[in-house]
Amino acid sequence: MIALDALGADHGPATVLEGARASGLDVALYGPAADMRAAAGDPRLEIVDSPLAIRGDEEPARAVRSRPEASIVRAATAVAGGRAEALVSAGPTGAVLAASLFHVKRLRGVHRPAIAALVPVPGRPTLLLDAGANAQVRPEHLVQFAYMGAAFMEAVHGVERPLVGLLSIGEEPGKGTPDVVEAHERLAGGPLDFAGNLEGGDLTSGAVDVVVTDGFTGNVALKTMEGTAKTVVGAIRDAVRSGPVSGVGGLLIRGKVGRLRRELDPNTVGGAILLGLRRVVVIAHGRSSADGIAGALRLARRAVDDRMVERTAAALEAGGALRSVPAASVASADD
Amino acid sequence: MIALDALGADHGPATVLEGARASGLDVALYGPAADMRAAAGDPRLEIVDSPLAIRGDEEPARAVRSRPEASIVRAATAVAGGRAEALVSAGPTGAVLAASLFHVKRLRGVHRPAIAALVPVPGRPTLLLDAGANAQVRPEHLVQFAYMGAAFMEAVHGVERPLVGLLSIGEEPGKGTPDVVEAHERLAGGPLDFAGNLEGGDLTSGAVDVVVTDGFTGNVALKTMEGTAKTVVGAIRDAVRSGPVSGVGGLLIRGKVGRLRRELDPNTVGGAILLGLRRVVVIAHGRSSADGIAGALRLARRAVDDRMVERTAAALEAGGALRSVPAASVASADD
Repeated sequence: MIALDALGADHGPATVLEGARASGLDVALYGPAADMRAAAGDPRLEIVDSPLAIRGDEEPARAVRSRPEASIVRAATAVAGGRAEALVSAGPTGAVLAASLFHVKRLRGVHRPAIAALVPVPGRPTLLLDAGANAQVRPEHLVQFAYMGAAFMEAVHGVERPLVGLLSIGEEPGKGTPDVVEAHERLAGGPLDFAGNLEGGDLTSGAVDVVVTDGFTGNVALKTMEGTAKTVVGAIRDAVRSGPVSGVGGLLIRGKVGRLRRELDPNTVGGAILLGLRRVVVIAHGRSSADGIAGALRLARRAVDDRMVERTAAALEAGGALRSVPAASVASADD
Repeated sequence: MIALDALGADHGPATVLEGARASGLDVALYGPAADMRAAAGDPRLEIVDSPLAIRGDEEPARAVRSRPEASIVRAATAVAGGRAEALVSAGPTGAVLAASLFHVKRLRGVHRPAIAALVPVPGRPTLLLDAGANAQVRPEHLVQFAYMGAAFMEAVHGVERPLVGLLSIGEEPGKGTPDVVEAHERLAGGPLDFAGNLEGGDLTSGAVDVVVTDGFTGNVALKTMEGTAKTVVGAIRDAVRSGPVSGVGGLLIRGKVGRLRRELDPNTVGGAILLGLRRVVVIAHGRSSADGIAGALRLARRAVDDRMVERTAAALEAGGALRSVPAASVASADD
């Protein structure tokens, strides 16, 4: 069973419900029952009436703490309590992150969860993390992201010994901020297949399986890729339109260009995954279609079936990347 | 007269010389005279024999300090001493930056020079800075970059009241790192046309004239744009090649796609400019062709003629963005 937050998606609860049905999976939907009557009679769907939303313009931590009856909080609580195996939401990222931190909780020894997004590079999909959960990080955070990302690519995408690179502004180990240089040193000394520093151009070249960076740079890079792909495809489409090839040939090329644009659009990949938590959490794009929701649910299902969480914990331990915590402070340690 | 470092470019001094001649400008070339005999008889070109290079794998500051006879150092010294009006080099960025800092020197009250690169967005070229001079910055640096970038777009590209945005991971003023949030506050209170926070997707949308960020994020974003444009254009070219349009129509489309790729390639823009110095310094791409070198020289000439440096200083002063320096420490203040 997957807990699905039905609120916060741009296209509303009815589209989220449609996605749940299209996935063919067992799903518990948290949202306004009045908007999801179409679920009646489907044995795979369960509706938990939760009409209260957390909006994108609210301070996420405060909203999550003060409103236990909000749909995302109830869905996260269901996962934390074992009534569901994974959490999926197309609501505001900050709210999903806060509800996951407070209720699903971090894996023991993990400093910070990271948002991991799969960049649809033709030939070799590349995982980018952190894509925006942590605007500022320390070297030990980057090191954990590396092991978490590698474990995900191995468990969920079947990549054997994933190659991991560190995003910087030069290939030499000494390039970048002091924090990046320190993370490089630690990663080079670990058991990971470490490709060293990468530059922005390597994000779409298929050079590695995992690219590690802080959440500020990762978010900017991901959105820069989306924007550039959109601009380039648009310019080519205009060139073809005004060009010498009309009729059937022109239509076919425009069709191909449009398909490519959809392929390169990170929104069609299903969703980003939150790594470093005790359960699987998938953040679907806010503007997901029903297909997008179904894709996010399938991604969550696959991550559960492939034991992503357990394998992430094992990879962090094997890499010596877990935070050492004094025994007495485990329950309250912050990061 | 423009001082041109003839060493460090991938294609060698002969290509740099060819670019100097193609520019039609008065140029003093600093490099090995033996490789530039073709200049003989051209009244616009002067050769200053300087066969010693600084390589990209050397520590720039140390190399520049210890080798006053290196071509980039001699060229920078010529500019500092007034024998040339501007400096152009296709050598290693670090060496150009170090030689400029030590010899050309910062404008009074400027914390750090920034590398500004023009992103060739169709319809509205957008200046991105810092593109890599400063991996870490403080809020007051970002504020200066904003005024410096606006002054450049106004002086050299004739943009009236340039619109300036701050790169972050959300549009709301509170989004981003604490440093970005503080820079936002200061810029919002200043005389600049400030568009607030932008996201990565806005870099290629033509939403603003100037995008301000730290040198780590800026470098990653710029290279991500280049890489994504290359990947997308390559994928479309493959699709067209294997498609239904062959013969003349296919050739014409491939020609258009190739042209677009060159247009979107930041290397063809001429060069990045160093802002915040007492003279004009242009960093041409290492793999510049002769045309690329000529473009960089013309950019430098235009910046001199349009009094970019004086207008940058005036804009910083008008924005109250200059560093206040105790009178006694001006000469030795570091940043």
